[in-house]
Amino acid sequence: MIPSGIITLTTDFGETDPYVAVMKGVILSINPDAKIVDLTHQVPAGSIQKGALMIKEVYPYFPAGTVHLGVIDPGVGGERRPIAIQAGDHCFVGPDNGLFWPVIEKQTDLSVIHLTNKKYWMNKVSPTFHGRDIFAPISAHLSMGANPFLLGEKIHNPITLDYPLALEKSGNLIGEIIKVDNFGNLITNITREQLSPFIASKGLTIKIGDLILKEISTTYSDVPKGSPLALIGSSNLLEIAVNMGNVVNFLGRKCKIGTKVIVTLS
Amino acid sequence: MIPSGIITLTTDFGETDPYVAVMKGVILSINPDAKIVDLTHQVPAGSIQKGALMIKEVYPYFPAGTVHLGVIDPGVGGERRPIAIQAGDHCFVGPDNGLFWPVIEKQTDLSVIHLTNKKYWMNKVSPTFHGRDIFAPISAHLSMGANPFLLGEKIHNPITLDYPLALEKSGNLIGEIIKVDNFGNLITNITREQLSPFIASKGLTIKIGDLILKEISTTYSDVPKGSPLALIGSSNLLEIAVNMGNVVNFLGRKCKIGTKVIVTLS
Amino acid sequence: MIPSGIITLTTDFGETDPYVAVMKGVILSINPDAKIVDLTHQVPAGSIQKGALMIKEVYPYFPAGTVHLGVIDPGVGGERRPIAIQAGDHCFVGPDNGLFWPVIEKQTDLSVIHLTNKKYWMNKVSPTFHGRDIFAPISAHLSMGANPFLLGEKIHNPITLDYPLALEKSGNLIGEIIKVDNFGNLITNITREQLSPFIASKGLTIKIGDLILKEISTTYSDVPKGSPLALIGSSNLLEIAVNMGNVVNFLGRKCKIGTKVIVTLS
Repeated sequence: MIPSGIITLTTDFGETDPYVAVMKGVILSINPDAKIVDLTHQVPAGSIQKGALMIKEVYPYFPAGTVHLGVIDPGVGGERRPIAIQAGDHCFVGPDNGLFWPVIEKQTDLSVIHLTNKKYWMNKVSPTFHGRDIFAPISAHLSMGANPFLLGEKIHNPITLDYPLALEKSGNLIGEIIKVDNFGNLITNITREQLSPFIASKGLTIKIGDLILKEISTTYSDVPKGSPLALIGSSNLLEIAVNMGNVVNFLGRKCKIGTKVIVTLS
Repeated sequence: MIPSGIITLTTDFGETDPYVAVMKGVILSINPDAKIVDLTHQVPAGSIQKGALMIKEVYPYFPAGTVHLGVIDPGVGGERRPIAIQAGDHCFVGPDNGLFWPVIEKQTDLSVIHLTNKKYWMNKVSPTFHGRDIFAPISAHLSMGANPFLLGEKIHNPITLDYPLALEKSGNLIGEIIKVDNFGNLITNITREQLSPFIASKGLTIKIGDLILKEISTTYSDVPKGSPLALIGSSNLLEIAVNMGNVVNFLGRKCKIGTKVIVTLS
Repeated sequence: MIPSGIITLTTDFGETDPYVAVMKGVILSINPDAKIVDLTHQVPAGSIQKGALMIKEVYPYFPAGTVHLGVIDPGVGGERRPIAIQAGDHCFVGPDNGLFWPVIEKQTDLSVIHLTNKKYWMNKVSPTFHGRDIFAPISAHLSMGANPFLLGEKIHNPITLDYPLALEKSGNLIGEIIKVDNFGNLITNITREQLSPFIASKGLTIKIGDLILKEISTTYSDVPKGSPLALIGSSNLLEIAVNMGNVVNFLGRKCKIGTKVIVTLS
């Protein structure tokens, strides 16, 4: 892999503690030319699933040769392995706890390395901050073109991650809300691909709580201001929204992460 | 315009969703040398006015040749035009909804381009995320020196923005609070210029709710700790504050955005 | 000092106001190649102590030649002096109010400069925003290799800072909680060094509120999920935590910043 020099960071560290800045200092001490880009540091503490979906969604927009450092690491210092992954044109560095599973589950060009070569770590490794002591230096070295195979031993059993996928059942699609975004839009796990036979047919019904929608809009302003709508969002997932409004306020407490969304032919 | 290579970002996307990082990935995939600087991503959802005032205040501090990307875009995918603006030594890219009006309303060296040349966009354009599919790639190309006139057609009717300006009325100045900053200082829309005849005269009175102030201080510590004061802040606007304190806590619920501030000669 | 080109920023400005972005614009207008890294902008308004501990903890991880700009400056525009500090291989720029005291108190290779040479400032200096008008331009010049001694006069009486240190008293260690991190871990001011004789002995007791812990764990997963533990954290300070949990929720209101933590031999 020819490195792009870019390292992205995804953590559950928040913005008030020194942890993120410390990792940036470590990276820049090894590779002063590294270009560090924050994906987010607002992953809820310990939420491997939310971090995993973030990394999966964002990484393809970065140039080939980018290193994606992810530290959602509730098992730090325990049995879980530190890993680096080469998947297609991108590298991923972090704990082996499923954080990168959605990225790699369908990859064919894939190598997973158990990081064991301490030459590429900080001299002293704290049992509670591998982000600083292992993952940041490894990422810096990868961003300078280090050969991933020198960092440790190849493994074939990375930890997998269960995350909710929408399913077809008796001709219906059963999905759920997986995210509420900053605008109060409800992002579901129902994909454009799963929806297309429903769209191609004569009519469909989307049901979420008490709300029933009868069509897929193209954009928010297709419906009057304040009205609810369904559309396929920019991540190719079915999304429930309110034009110029907040669907969470509209639907109240009945919609939250995990709420079922059902699509049927009508 | 000789590009500085800097692209600033102002959005209402917040810090938890993938949207900002995705735009950065798109920019760096086109211009790996772009220097991206976040202005803020905390503009309240859909608040064109707040985004506009932010961009207007900050952009002059950046080097000539900087591209300012703004995405507060509640009408995305509808009728509103995507635009790029060359105004003096700076470029601006975003929706034609008034977001850049305070920057351009008094500009003489000004070109506004309706972005229509899809060659400079992402291959596929989602109807709900022009930040990623149009504005990010356009900004990247401009930061590499692309000629704005190749991006579309020049237009002469950009959307304007109503925003509250302080007025002189029967010899008094009538303004209002337009922002409460992180320190709890109240920023008004009364300018240093408007104030100067009042300051030059023998005495003035500033009235906000029940609070009456009789002079303009130079800095916070001109008054005792815990006392309220008025000063001309770093943006050349009249500001009401409390030395080492928070004027919002001091005045209570009587002061908020939109609260009238009246300056009279005494 | 050979500059690294990196400038770190630590402020109490938050992320919604224009202040941080304005400083970045000023820096990049002077040194377009500066590499700006945010430490945090979430220091509580006016909290010199919290800002000081942040800077002290993070700066050693950055390369030699880095400039650390800190603006927690409640006395801006008053009597307090603007200063630049060369301490070992790093520079520090900000108000002389104790913000850098924990960094310099034990430094032997140290010069403190009272910034008086206006040639290196913005042309106009506002009495309320020295971050923009003095500290940002000074930092930019230092990041390009400016000689600190040309920026003003050397002084020998920088303002000191009182901050709580753990003490040994009748054979016990008396410390306190100085920070609650993003994970709800309680960081104390008891250092690894102070603890080592206690660890070396046969048994110790750590008392915080009603909670009594009898050993120092190595990492979180040494105890069952949901159980409390004490460990020496990544900053070499005693830390009270709950495995996969939040010790603040566990202990309730009894633990907060300032709560006493007592270590005794048992």
